[in-house]
Amino acid sequence: MEQALLIPTVAEKVFARDLVDGQQVETAFIVREVSRRSKRNGEAFLKLQLGDVTGRVEAVCWDDVDAVADAAAPGAVLIVRGAYSDDERYGATLTVRGARLAGDGEYDPQDLHECAPVPFAQMEADLRELIGTVQCPHLRELLDRLMAPDSTVWRRWSIWPAAKHYHHAYRHGLLEHSLSVAQGVSAMAATFPGLDRDVAVTGALLHDIGKIEAYEMEGDSIDLSGSGKLQGEIPLGYFAVRREIEAIAGFPADTAEALLHIILSHHGSLEHGSPVAPCTREATLVHAIDNLGGKLGSFDRLEKSLGDGERWSRFDRALDGSAYFARRDAA
Amino acid sequence: MEQALLIPTVAEKVFARDLVDGQQVETAFIVREVSRRSKRNGEAFLKLQLGDVTGRVEAVCWDDVDAVADAAAPGAVLIVRGAYSDDERYGATLTVRGARLAGDGEYDPQDLHECAPVPFAQMEADLRELIGTVQCPHLRELLDRLMAPDSTVWRRWSIWPAAKHYHHAYRHGLLEHSLSVAQGVSAMAATFPGLDRDVAVTGALLHDIGKIEAYEMEGDSIDLSGSGKLQGEIPLGYFAVRREIEAIAGFPADTAEALLHIILSHHGSLEHGSPVAPCTREATLVHAIDNLGGKLGSFDRLEKSLGDGERWSRFDRALDGSAYFARRDAA
Amino acid sequence: MEQALLIPTVAEKVFARDLVDGQQVETAFIVREVSRRSKRNGEAFLKLQLGDVTGRVEAVCWDDVDAVADAAAPGAVLIVRGAYSDDERYGATLTVRGARLAGDGEYDPQDLHECAPVPFAQMEADLRELIGTVQCPHLRELLDRLMAPDSTVWRRWSIWPAAKHYHHAYRHGLLEHSLSVAQGVSAMAATFPGLDRDVAVTGALLHDIGKIEAYEMEGDSIDLSGSGKLQGEIPLGYFAVRREIEAIAGFPADTAEALLHIILSHHGSLEHGSPVAPCTREATLVHAIDNLGGKLGSFDRLEKSLGDGERWSRFDRALDGSAYFARRDAA
Amino acid sequence: MEQALLIPTVAEKVFARDLVDGQQVETAFIVREVSRRSKRNGEAFLKLQLGDVTGRVEAVCWDDVDAVADAAAPGAVLIVRGAYSDDERYGATLTVRGARLAGDGEYDPQDLHECAPVPFAQMEADLRELIGTVQCPHLRELLDRLMAPDSTVWRRWSIWPAAKHYHHAYRHGLLEHSLSVAQGVSAMAATFPGLDRDVAVTGALLHDIGKIEAYEMEGDSIDLSGSGKLQGEIPLGYFAVRREIEAIAGFPADTAEALLHIILSHHGSLEHGSPVAPCTREATLVHAIDNLGGKLGSFDRLEKSLGDGERWSRFDRALDGSAYFARRDAA
Amino acid sequence: MEQALLIPTVAEKVFARDLVDGQQVETAFIVREVSRRSKRNGEAFLKLQLGDVTGRVEAVCWDDVDAVADAAAPGAVLIVRGAYSDDERYGATLTVRGARLAGDGEYDPQDLHECAPVPFAQMEADLRELIGTVQCPHLRELLDRLMAPDSTVWRRWSIWPAAKHYHHAYRHGLLEHSLSVAQGVSAMAATFPGLDRDVAVTGALLHDIGKIEAYEMEGDSIDLSGSGKLQGEIPLGYFAVRREIEAIAGFPADTAEALLHIILSHHGSLEHGSPVAPCTREATLVHAIDNLGGKLGSFDRLEKSLGDGERWSRFDRALDGSAYFARRDAA
Amino acid sequence: MEQALLIPTVAEKVFARDLVDGQQVETAFIVREVSRRSKRNGEAFLKLQLGDVTGRVEAVCWDDVDAVADAAAPGAVLIVRGAYSDDERYGATLTVRGARLAGDGEYDPQDLHECAPVPFAQMEADLRELIGTVQCPHLRELLDRLMAPDSTVWRRWSIWPAAKHYHHAYRHGLLEHSLSVAQGVSAMAATFPGLDRDVAVTGALLHDIGKIEAYEMEGDSIDLSGSGKLQGEIPLGYFAVRREIEAIAGFPADTAEALLHIILSHHGSLEHGSPVAPCTREATLVHAIDNLGGKLGSFDRLEKSLGDGERWSRFDRALDGSAYFARRDAA
Repeated sequence: MEQALLIPTVAEKVFARDLVDGQQVETAFIVREVSRRSKRNGEAFLKLQLGDVTGRVEAVCWDDVDAVADAAAPGAVLIVRGAYSDDERYGATLTVRGARLAGDGEYDPQDLHECAPVPFAQMEADLRELIGTVQCPHLRELLDRLMAPDSTVWRRWSIWPAAKHYHHAYRHGLLEHSLSVAQGVSAMAATFPGLDRDVAVTGALLHDIGKIEAYEMEGDSIDLSGSGKLQGEIPLGYFAVRREIEAIAGFPADTAEALLHIILSHHGSLEHGSPVAPCTREATLVHAIDNLGGKLGSFDRLEKSLGDGERWSRFDRALDGSAYFARRDAA
Repeated sequence: MEQALLIPTVAEKVFARDLVDGQQVETAFIVREVSRRSKRNGEAFLKLQLGDVTGRVEAVCWDDVDAVADAAAPGAVLIVRGAYSDDERYGATLTVRGARLAGDGEYDPQDLHECAPVPFAQMEADLRELIGTVQCPHLRELLDRLMAPDSTVWRRWSIWPAAKHYHHAYRHGLLEHSLSVAQGVSAMAATFPGLDRDVAVTGALLHDIGKIEAYEMEGDSIDLSGSGKLQGEIPLGYFAVRREIEAIAGFPADTAEALLHIILSHHGSLEHGSPVAPCTREATLVHAIDNLGGKLGSFDRLEKSLGDGERWSRFDRALDGSAYFARRDAA
Repeated sequence: MEQALLIPTVAEKVFARDLVDGQQVETAFIVREVSRRSKRNGEAFLKLQLGDVTGRVEAVCWDDVDAVADAAAPGAVLIVRGAYSDDERYGATLTVRGARLAGDGEYDPQDLHECAPVPFAQMEADLRELIGTVQCPHLRELLDRLMAPDSTVWRRWSIWPAAKHYHHAYRHGLLEHSLSVAQGVSAMAATFPGLDRDVAVTGALLHDIGKIEAYEMEGDSIDLSGSGKLQGEIPLGYFAVRREIEAIAGFPADTAEALLHIILSHHGSLEHGSPVAPCTREATLVHAIDNLGGKLGSFDRLEKSLGDGERWSRFDRALDGSAYFARRDAA
Repeated sequence: MEQALLIPTVAEKVFARDLVDGQQVETAFIVREVSRRSKRNGEAFLKLQLGDVTGRVEAVCWDDVDAVADAAAPGAVLIVRGAYSDDERYGATLTVRGARLAGDGEYDPQDLHECAPVPFAQMEADLRELIGTVQCPHLRELLDRLMAPDSTVWRRWSIWPAAKHYHHAYRHGLLEHSLSVAQGVSAMAATFPGLDRDVAVTGALLHDIGKIEAYEMEGDSIDLSGSGKLQGEIPLGYFAVRREIEAIAGFPADTAEALLHIILSHHGSLEHGSPVAPCTREATLVHAIDNLGGKLGSFDRLEKSLGDGERWSRFDRALDGSAYFARRDAA
Repeated sequence: MEQALLIPTVAEKVFARDLVDGQQVETAFIVREVSRRSKRNGEAFLKLQLGDVTGRVEAVCWDDVDAVADAAAPGAVLIVRGAYSDDERYGATLTVRGARLAGDGEYDPQDLHECAPVPFAQMEADLRELIGTVQCPHLRELLDRLMAPDSTVWRRWSIWPAAKHYHHAYRHGLLEHSLSVAQGVSAMAATFPGLDRDVAVTGALLHDIGKIEAYEMEGDSIDLSGSGKLQGEIPLGYFAVRREIEAIAGFPADTAEALLHIILSHHGSLEHGSPVAPCTREATLVHAIDNLGGKLGSFDRLEKSLGDGERWSRFDRALDGSAYFARRDAA
Repeated sequence: MEQALLIPTVAEKVFARDLVDGQQVETAFIVREVSRRSKRNGEAFLKLQLGDVTGRVEAVCWDDVDAVADAAAPGAVLIVRGAYSDDERYGATLTVRGARLAGDGEYDPQDLHECAPVPFAQMEADLRELIGTVQCPHLRELLDRLMAPDSTVWRRWSIWPAAKHYHHAYRHGLLEHSLSVAQGVSAMAATFPGLDRDVAVTGALLHDIGKIEAYEMEGDSIDLSGSGKLQGEIPLGYFAVRREIEAIAGFPADTAEALLHIILSHHGSLEHGSPVAPCTREATLVHAIDNLGGKLGSFDRLEKSLGDGERWSRFDRALDGSAYFARRDAA
């Protein structure tokens, strides 16, 4: 992290995961939650939740409350100065002595929030290159319409998260996930015989398109939308793609059905929310690589939460178990 | 069945279920399957499957083969003369000595195939009356459009079966089932508080609308269509209704979502093929009465298959058990 | 506890659900729990849990401890004066400054505990009217014996709750639930053919009769009894009804078995605690409407817990999901 | 098998399991089914199903039809003379040339039907000895009443089968099974601490008592009764024992509940038909040994069906797999 | 059996799947089963089951029985001449008029049995190339030992089938399956970050190694061995690899455990027979691609069974559904 | 608590389970956790978790911190003097006023930690006696090698716990559990016919041998090892026994397979982690008695946690329910 000369230099990021009782800190945190409260004597104080990519820490600020309150909007990045204690009675708290908005050069965004490990521009370029390999003109037109830089779909799809918790639950996560699944599908189509690569790759790119309606994103906050809960991400995506297909003259019915079947069946089974189970090679393939990509994404997320020397993650609901990282140096 | 004077009178219907070894029969059957075969000596004979509402019987015809073959098209109703034997080696067979097309007055259609117990005209009248009770103008318009006598939907929906096997698996079965579910839903809305009756009744009427694309019907033969298998009846119905809603100006988004949620969730849970589970009172109600109506329809079907004095049906997959008919006289 | 002079007027109910940090309150609450404790300096104080129909709030009382302790018996309704704080360290607490027993006119019971929305007298009248429609003399005699105003069964059944948590978990809840299920069953018997209405309605009224032994109720507190845990509500109800039937001369064996089968099978499947699954139309019907009535009861309960403008409930175990209330004005 | 001098001596039992194409046989079989049929030419013949402990064989009799028909009542033991063929077209058949009723000394009953390996008198003696070890006077009285040689219960219980198929599905099977479970329970009560042996042993003896109403036995034919299907064997047994307990003055409520809980919970879980799961040591024990005894009974049954040198049984539903018999000589 | 003089030319393969009533055939079949039987008049005849890659056909031979019997050993390839009839009474049968052993040039082996679509030499070359890319010297040594051309493991592993039914159930199927899974794993390791490619590829190659003890292969006949049933393919493979690892000096414990974990967990979950579930990225990957490869193998198998114009396979247990082949020309 | 003059005698144990608000205590506790902390004013204090066989209590020590800290190593037994309060705000805490290491005679170890109810020497003697009854020389040699007093296996196996939580989760628990299962198996082999007692008893003794690698024990702290999580206790035990068998010359393959099958299948089904399900009588028996022994062990554990007069335990995960202790005096 290159720093300007004079001014506020934060020697090094101190991570929430690594705080120990009694530690003095001056480091960057993102504000997750903030509320103004009153002590019994009537004086105001702030209760905050601060976070970085490794976790969260409860904080309280008794001093300079107004100034800190001005800076501490949810989502803002602060340089926080204070002391951490893991108190017998009150639990773990960071007592904030001062805080100010961080300048752009003062922190590395990847220290603060989970994000795609590849820059957006690179992902978009990889995506457009992959789309360029689709030979079927109708599938190509469908992708070109949905992924056109000025399309409504693209504007959401390209920045949306892929989930609320489990994997790729951050800005551009949907793009990152869809792209890697499609790349994996493309590679498998070269390994196993009998696959219609164009259908499979298009299905892989569009399989999660319903998430742009099923999720809402405000700042770093991701949640299911009302439509997501009442209609489900799969019907929403199915409707969007089928309506777009119907707007393309001459789109072959067979190809349409093959693609829609992938979107409808990509959760792999009824009990996971697909109204039909995969019954084509292409749908079987997209489901397998989507599932694999999601699990590997959970490994990525869990690895970041490990402390020094730890090899086992905590129990994780997405994996239904703990993850083990055998060779962390190599990871 | 009293017959006019001169012509072929069939004293009484002999049912497939009741045939006994050695019995001579002359009665009406519907032709289910027919194939022309050759004996080892090269002579032609016919192998048939004949049926009525109580079941099916394998048949063979060695005599008068050409004449019988002319009459015996699948779906045709024949007056069949022959002898039934439950042979040690060859199993149960009806040896057909003669057969001719039955005249309209010579049989009671309800003896031959399962059908709705209420005449179509009555069901349509009941349906239009029920639609007339829907107060919400947008839901009313939606129903009027879909159920208009000249609409594409109505032309299939009003004659379609509700299933391939389990219940209401016959002409007009979908109308019969949807109507009775909607009537039941309407009655429950008067018993339990807090329900939006218009949404619930409309949802009940339309819940299975996807079946008109998911099933194919040819004569008495019902089967899942390719679209039914690749897309599923629920997404097909959801798409059809949502597209129709979008064609109605000013249709409230809330009402649309409440209705679509019923269609999507009416199987009650993910493992039964609904991509979302019911989370409104109305969806909970429609699922419950649809499920109940289906099970009671299975009881109706099984009761017809019972022989004299039988009270227990065979094991039935739809009920996952046997059905017991305690008071058959009263049924 | 200083009181205003004249009359018991409580301006307006303040609900537990709506309390906000810093709010001063003077309103009615029911006492859920109370314990006398000592501060480190040896002074006594009270720790309470107060509640109303919308939820519960932890409370503490440092002042006037003896007087408040006298009034604050579990189950008592108090007019409580104090201040609510949602403290950084200590969580949400109502600090009670004064409290006295509330007079009858000072509060609306429906603000304080869940209860049947229809008065008991009305429910009893509806019940007796419904019993009057049962034609079968033996079933009628059975109901008359069990529901006689001076019978042991009636004295418990008419006031018992239907559950500990999920639905109708309040005084008269069992009557309310059984009555509405029986009314629904009666309505369905008019919609679907082939049902023995007398058996179905009697089964619906008696299906949960085992709960009067399986649950204990003390004040507002409901819990499973030892017998409930060791024998189960279904065997307890089965034994009670079968023994009563055996005391009625000439009770037909068929009718007895049809009724007992409903009681035994009304949970719908083995894994839900029925030792046999429903295999008659009537048992299928009672199970369906019982299940529906329970779910709609959960919607009623959850709707009361919603804050202003909320449409989604929290996750609920009874529904295995969240409930959505689309049109709260209409509810 | 010692035979009297002159008369029909059947050299050796030929087992159904071991018949080979072309074999001439003269051996004892039990008649399972018989029906008189007509050939196309009008002549009568008999179609039979013959059996022994190793299986069944289809048979046909063209000769001496009237005489054979007189002897061949279902359940009768015949000395059958004929030829076995495993025909290309007609499958495996024993063509009966002659048959007559077997005399008592002409066959070993254990060759013909499954039966308890220990004589009834021995089992009864063992049972009465075990009952004699029960110290608790109330449990002792209960057992003495139910097992009194002239009691209605004893008359059925002592000869009833324990199942239709899976294990101990033969005369006295219920006694054999209940006794061995109770003996096993008694032995375990000496191995593991904290068990109330009297309650456990009594529960083990009575756990399946409901089967005397839940099953019907006619000759060798065993089937579920109507009551068995509508009420279930567990509620039937629970009712019978609870009613008997209530007839014993001063029977302690605790002991009654401990015993009834064993009967109700002995299937081990709700999905196996117990309305409550075991929650006492004694109920846990009886369930475990009952389950073990049932499975070992299935091994006994399957071992009898093995041919020479076979070590693996066919797939068996009771075991949900095949059984392996490692040391058949030692078995 | 009269033969044409000169050369073995079989005009064209007639497939079992395509036989129609009355067809005369002269084509190659493989003998699946054969037995010599006697007619009632004592004359011998043969009952056979013949097969090719598309299915099986029952056959009977009345003529020239001794000569045909000499040729028709199970597994032998015959040129069969005869007539096919789908008889009313006797079902579908090929009546064999003559048969002789086929010469090597007279048939295409791929017409007769399922086999790997790639020649063995090519697969071995691909395998050795892939092994050559493994960098870790210990994993490399392990592979070199197990896969050495003269090793006991290689001699079985390289020719073994991968299953009895579901996929790759033919000679070299295990090699074909393991190789394609390992190639797929290798490709995915290039798409997704954080994977230890050497461990994953080695695990993919060895994951099914236990099958060489768990299956027996005799000719075309594949079955589970006793050890396969009593110990399971996973423990057998685990033992073999762990013992081999222990024979390699200096094999790192971490690497050993990472590899053994893949073998143990590759079925993905306990209920599928893995004693531990995957908890590393590499084990997650191998399970996913193994599962995918198995399913795609089932698609390959089912596609071969389709008749002309068919797009839907029959229900298949491996896929738990039917497979759809949208673009059969392209397959 | 009055003390005798001279020596350290602790009149009576005060149990964690029985502490009440305001109680003064001087009694023995074992130290579970300890950490040194700083107050806001910089002074040191200690936060401890103390425990005994009935549970745990949080404690804090403000006085004499250094002396207490010296004594309070995790696992040490202290005589603790202090006051217990169940504070409104801070929860339940024992404020320690003084503490010193307890002498051997000052406490009963069974008051402090769960342990086997039978002394180790007795269990070892019982074990060696049981081993002495094994007749098969190869099984006997196997047991003699593994259980030899100086063997690596014995040194761990004889002191290891059988679990982390559920049952026998204490020193020597594995020996206690294995011995009682083997004794139960031996008794059952005398009750049920057809069992190979030597194989069953040996399998019962060795079934959990993999736990000595799958668990780590440090002091009272028990946890799964890395190998336990990556390989599973069953494969670890299978490998150990199979390798030992292979070192015994002439060990019969049949006997080896019968024994290994018990170890592999003793969890009873795939979903419980056995890679094969039991398919022999002996494996079926060991699974049943192991399961029973585990459940009865959970009853033992739960009974110790009951307060005076309590008959129902809290919900327990091992039993998936609450345990009921009907006759605690008799237990």
